[in-house]
Amino acid sequence: MKKYLDFALRMCKHAKKVMLKYYKHKNGENYKTDHTIVTKADTEINNYLIEQVKKNFPSHSVNGEENSFGNSKFVWVCDPVDGTAMYAKHLPVAVFSIALCEDGAPILGAVMDPFSNKVYYAVKGQGAFVNGYKLSVNNLGFEQMKTIGHVDIWPFSGYEILDVIKQLENKSYIVSIGTVTHACMMVASGDFSYIIFPGTVGKNVDFAAAKIIIEEAGGKVTDFDGNEQRYDKDINGAIASNGVLQSELIKLVKKYAIKK
Amino acid sequence: MKKYLDFALRMCKHAKKVMLKYYKHKNGENYKTDHTIVTKADTEINNYLIEQVKKNFPSHSVNGEENSFGNSKFVWVCDPVDGTAMYAKHLPVAVFSIALCEDGAPILGAVMDPFSNKVYYAVKGQGAFVNGYKLSVNNLGFEQMKTIGHVDIWPFSGYEILDVIKQLENKSYIVSIGTVTHACMMVASGDFSYIIFPGTVGKNVDFAAAKIIIEEAGGKVTDFDGNEQRYDKDINGAIASNGVLQSELIKLVKKYAIKK
Repeated sequence: MKKYLDFALRMCKHAKKVMLKYYKHKNGENYKTDHTIVTKADTEINNYLIEQVKKNFPSHSVNGEENSFGNSKFVWVCDPVDGTAMYAKHLPVAVFSIALCEDGAPILGAVMDPFSNKVYYAVKGQGAFVNGYKLSVNNLGFEQMKTIGHVDIWPFSGYEILDVIKQLENKSYIVSIGTVTHACMMVASGDFSYIIFPGTVGKNVDFAAAKIIIEEAGGKVTDFDGNEQRYDKDINGAIASNGVLQSELIKLVKKYAIKK
Repeated sequence: MKKYLDFALRMCKHAKKVMLKYYKHKNGENYKTDHTIVTKADTEINNYLIEQVKKNFPSHSVNGEENSFGNSKFVWVCDPVDGTAMYAKHLPVAVFSIALCEDGAPILGAVMDPFSNKVYYAVKGQGAFVNGYKLSVNNLGFEQMKTIGHVDIWPFSGYEILDVIKQLENKSYIVSIGTVTHACMMVASGDFSYIIFPGTVGKNVDFAAAKIIIEEAGGKVTDFDGNEQRYDKDINGAIASNGVLQSELIKLVKKYAIKK
């Protein structure tokens, strides 16, 4: 596993360099057919990963948000820039995310926040860390309004989510910071308590690393039905939390999220 | 006016120093009676401003989020840390905001983003700037889903806003970045196109500077009824935009926001 983790961390360093290189300049933003933004950084990071996986682990595949290749049991799942819209608009919250999945289950994950120079990572069974410090979720319930949650609102997602927000807005402070993967790292660090994400098609890339990092930090990640799911293909939404809130969130989502 | 602007910019520099000083450490967060977080940075910045106004402009008042004094025609309106929850949770988006109001109307404003080292400022009739560069709103309508809007969700605000989001979620990408004043600066810079803010009591401090900076950048700020309002006392919500969207947003808010 060490060589895989070293590789993931090397990809984090590279992604940081590329993200910072384009951040302050015109970053070549374009709109994709699904109306989301893609920048030079997204494609450059994604293509470099493919090149490096081919070179270092030729039997593995890559499932990247912008480009993919292969069909292996071992898949490097990557979101080159999560929070691309915020990145393109110069708000320093976007992150790079990479995970190695075996049969759809992440066995290691790493997330790079280039702006705060933080790298979050986890290997199955070995705990989760940020820059060498152990990560641990908080244990907050909904009492006292100290809970912060991130909920994504996006018209092209798989579920209408506003009725879920309605149930939560009086129990917790809800934000939507423009990058769900970064919000997941805030759950892993104990700063946020939960996230709810209604995305489906192509959205596994946002969660493959987050899944293992949050769970190694003591939290829980499931799909919208409360089930485990594969992270090397489309997902059925995602609910992530400190664990304490997970069953209540699953109940709320089952009752109030409307499939589109 | 120059001495007032110089003073505001000096307060920005001081706020940056204090915000960065406490950011990486335990920042002494506490919960106020309205369930919002206050940190050492909030109180230290607010108290320094009071001390400095007393010293430099003894006939002026201060209306700060944490502390205030006086009852003058000229009021320094200040939010020492807007986005305190994000600040306390180490997400680098919080800003400092200061404005000088004459009879409730801001005649100058300045906002400091200490993490990106950007200072936004405007003097009535003289345009808006960030680090010396002219700010200008965008001219996007709701076509093509290129519009980004920030909408605040907060249980202790004056209006229930979810039905407004329902009307907007298929027309624009909606975020809620945890600091409305920073989101306003994104409107002034043309990166975001609008914000909707349902706050009322004590929330003028979030908008006194934003009002003049956005309008000097070519945009528009009104209350929830589409009216002008004073920014040295409680407000009736706030709608800010690139101008293009303002009347449509006012209509939507009038129809769908529910007063609590």
